[in-house]
Formats: sequence, structure tokens, C-alpha cells
Amino acid sequence: MKVKLASHYGFCFGVKRAIKIAEEHKNSATMGPLIHNQKEISRLKKDFNVDLYETIDEAKEHDTVIIRTHGIPKNDLAELKKNDTKVINATCPFVTTPQQIVKKMSEDKYSVVIFGDADHPEVKGVKSYGDDVHVVPNPEALDSLIFKYDKIATVAQTTKQKEKYLDIVNSLILKYKEVRVFNTICDATFENQAATRELSDTVDIMIVIGGKNSSNTKQLFNISEENCVSYLIEDETELDLKWFKDKETCGVTAGASTPDWIIQKVIQNIEKI
Amino acid sequence: MKVKLASHYGFCFGVKRAIKIAEEHKNSATMGPLIHNQKEISRLKKDFNVDLYETIDEAKEHDTVIIRTHGIPKNDLAELKKNDTKVINATCPFVTTPQQIVKKMSEDKYSVVIFGDADHPEVKGVKSYGDDVHVVPNPEALDSLIFKYDKIATVAQTTKQKEKYLDIVNSLILKYKEVRVFNTICDATFENQAATRELSDTVDIMIVIGGKNSSNTKQLFNISEENCVSYLIEDETELDLKWFKDKETCGVTAGASTPDWIIQKVIQNIEKI
Repeated sequence: MKVKLASHYGFCFGVKRAIKIAEEHKNSATMGPLIHNQKEISRLKKDFNVDLYETIDEAKEHDTVIIRTHGIPKNDLAELKKNDTKVINATCPFVTTPQQIVKKMSEDKYSVVIFGDADHPEVKGVKSYGDDVHVVPNPEALDSLIFKYDKIATVAQTTKQKEKYLDIVNSLILKYKEVRVFNTICDATFENQAATRELSDTVDIMIVIGGKNSSNTKQLFNISEENCVSYLIEDETELDLKWFKDKETCGVTAGASTPDWIIQKVIQNIEKI
Repeated sequence: MKVKLASHYGFCFGVKRAIKIAEEHKNSATMGPLIHNQKEISRLKKDFNVDLYETIDEAKEHDTVIIRTHGIPKNDLAELKKNDTKVINATCPFVTTPQQIVKKMSEDKYSVVIFGDADHPEVKGVKSYGDDVHVVPNPEALDSLIFKYDKIATVAQTTKQKEKYLDIVNSLILKYKEVRVFNTICDATFENQAATRELSDTVDIMIVIGGKNSSNTKQLFNISEENCVSYLIEDETELDLKWFKDKETCGVTAGASTPDWIIQKVIQNIEKI
């Protein structure tokens, strides 16, 4: 099987930075999974003894805590700092930006709309920085909202699709006198998406590698699926021979939390088919 | 011929207000045409001796000057005030709003994009209140712009179509980190447009009444033309019998500067056909 790799794929700036921070702090622990890739987290535990706390109560009893790339809610961060825990912030700077925007806009009496998934840790964190903040996954969700203020500010989860963000923003612009639109979608996300769109249009099958709970990986899968038969896998063990029957060229891309060593194993396995 | 009138048409709040101001100031004069309707301006001259100045140099030598509904450039206003001319401001409040937004955004170091026609007096006025202000008639015009600042604010000429404003705004959102969108399109304009869209879809022919230099009238004509054969006329003398051959129902609408007495004459003439 011939394999074509997307022109942009895999680790983004924020993930690379977070892993470097974790590797530099042996025997520490992260508050929540550092990135959305279980295998890379296992590697950090095995090679650097970096542990994982699931709750703030657990984390605040320890000396050194690394904040995950997605950030954590404002009060959780305050709780940790209050307990004299050494906090090492690996929050991606592209996530810190919407947190600060939401804080500033709330201070300036804007109601805030976040385009994102309410359950995603990044969104929970960003939301916590504001006063009247509403999370919407699609334009329809706007209909039931009641805003506290008459001016609206919007941010997007960093890994969302720009086109879908525009749908939400446009609905708001038609209804409100001022909508302050912050484009907080990460360029790396956008580049990976554009490369996936381009590649999936030229191959017979696409393999998207990434965590099943990774938002940006799911976006890549959705884009890819529009153009050709696509499969989302976490590693090479999930590859299924029958997917490749009668196919000649396979495209490969990977989410921002997918380490290169996993991508390489997947490619090697597909090339053998 | 059966005539159907649009559910919203004709004089808007700002035009009604300006005409009332002019009628209350007999023997005064307006700086530029008060509204975009030559016949109504002639009536004000005939019935109230309200004159018309075409230039600031002409206006500033007189006692009392009424500012047109579309507003005038900031420096022209300053010039008038400097000369102790009594300035009566008939600028539509919906035009004063974008003027003030452009002023505030420029002070806050935003580059400003106006969706509008560079030659329109309203746009000339609004533009004059800012520092780095760019007038664009369509999204393509954005490509050649170089902005002084990295944050963008947008306003629209009050009589533009909302959907076309979104096209421009969306192009900007995809490129810039912050776009502050002010929806300055006037509700009356929007209501007239929606009513024209609705009516033109149910009749055989549409007559749009208004000044040939009136932006909002042209928008109504463009909308109407998408649905049925449409004609833009200034008054009943322009009606042509052959337009109505084989037609049963005629829709009528009118721009925001078209006085009711002209609309009634047109309707009476069409009904006789």
C-alpha cells in the first residue's frame, strides 16, 4: 500500500511544550491528563515517573503539579496556589489567550459565547474566567440563550473548525448591535485541518491517528470523512486489513496530541499491506 | 391593474425627523441635499423657503445651516461651528452612531472597515471620524488593504444588506485575531428590504419608488429584481404602459426618502391601468 502523509500533522506547539515541561520535571504529576493521548502519558510515567492526578483534592496534597495543556478552571488553580503547591503551568498559550479574553470581556460587561463542547476540559477552564458565559456547540443552541448584557463577545475552542465558528458568529451579528469576535482557533489546528482536507481528496482511504477523546483529532476525522473512507485509530494495533481491500493509496494524518513514534509505527504497518 | 403595497416602505425615522426639523426652520438652508429625494427638497423650498448649499464655503457664510440626514465630514462641521454659524443637526441618529463608533475605535487603535460606497455622503461623513479607515464595497476589495493596527472594527453604511455585510466580516474574521463587528444597518432599512423580498415573490411586476441616487432605494430594487420584473422610478411620470402588458398584480415599495404623496400618485396611476 502506498502511503501519503499530510503536509501538516501531529504535535502542535502547545503539546510539544507541555511534554518538554513534563520531561524536565521527573517525579512530578499532572493535574488531569497532560494531553489527550494515553500512550504518551504512559510513556511519561514509565520514562520520567510523571504521575497523574484526577482531582484537585488529590493534587493539592502534593508538592509539584503540572497544569495540563487544556488548562484548568480558575478556582481549581486558585485552590492549588492557596495550598503552597508548586504549580508548573503547561497550559498552552493559545488556551491562556481565550481565558484572558473571557476575563477581560466579562469585566467590560460583555456576555460571552464560547463555541465549543461544554464537557471539554479546555472549555470548562475558559468558561470559568467569566461572568455571563455560554457554551454553544452549534448555531441552534443560541436560540434558547438569555444574555445578561447587550454586547456580545465570542471565542472558540482552539480546535474547532473556522467555518462552523462563522455560522455561530453570523447568527449573533444579525441580532446584536455589537459582536466582538476573537478568532482563538489555533493556527496549527487550522493547518492540520487544511492539510487533511487537501490530502483526503487525493487518496482512496484515510487513516487519522489520535486519541478518541481528542477534539482536534475528531475534527480531522470529520473533514477527512467528507472526502473518502476514513478510520480513526489510536495506534497500529487497531489497523484492519479488510479496510484496504481494492485500495491503492492511503493518506495518513494525526491529531495534535499524537506522538511521532506512534505515527511512524502506523505508517510502517500500512506500507507492509 | 391590482396593486399590492409592501408591508413596510417609505420614510424612515431619520427622514421624518429631518423633514420636521426643516419645516420648523423656515428660510434656513441645508448643507447638501437634506434627503435623497429631489421632489421633496423642491417642496421644502416652495412651502418653507428652505434653501440648499452645495459647498461648505457657501454654507459657512450664512446664519443657520441644517445638517443633512446623511451627516457631513467632521472637518466640515468644525468649519461651520468655527464661523459662528447656527448649526441644526438633522443627521439621522442611526448615522451618528457609526460616526461615534469610528471615532472611539480609532482612539482605541483599531483599523476600521466600513462596508459602503466611498462616494456616498453618509460614508464620507462616517469615514472622517477615524484614523485608519477603509471603505470596501465588497469582500474582494479587502485583499488590497494594508491595515495600520492588528485589531479590526467594522461598521456598515446604514442602508446596506446584512447578508453582504456578513461576507465582508467573515473574510476578516478568518484573517485577524480580533474583529469587532458593529451592526449599524438600520432596522427600518432591514424591514423595508424584508417586506420587498416577501412582496416581490408574490406579484408579476414590482415598482420601486425612490431617488436614483438613493442607496437604500437601489438595495430595494436589487432585492426585488431577484424575484420579478422590476422598475425603479422617481415618480408617476416615469410609468410606462407597456411594462404592464400581460401582468395582473403589481407590487409597490418605496425607499426611505420617498414621501407618501409621491407614492399615492404612483399607486393611483397604476390602478387605472
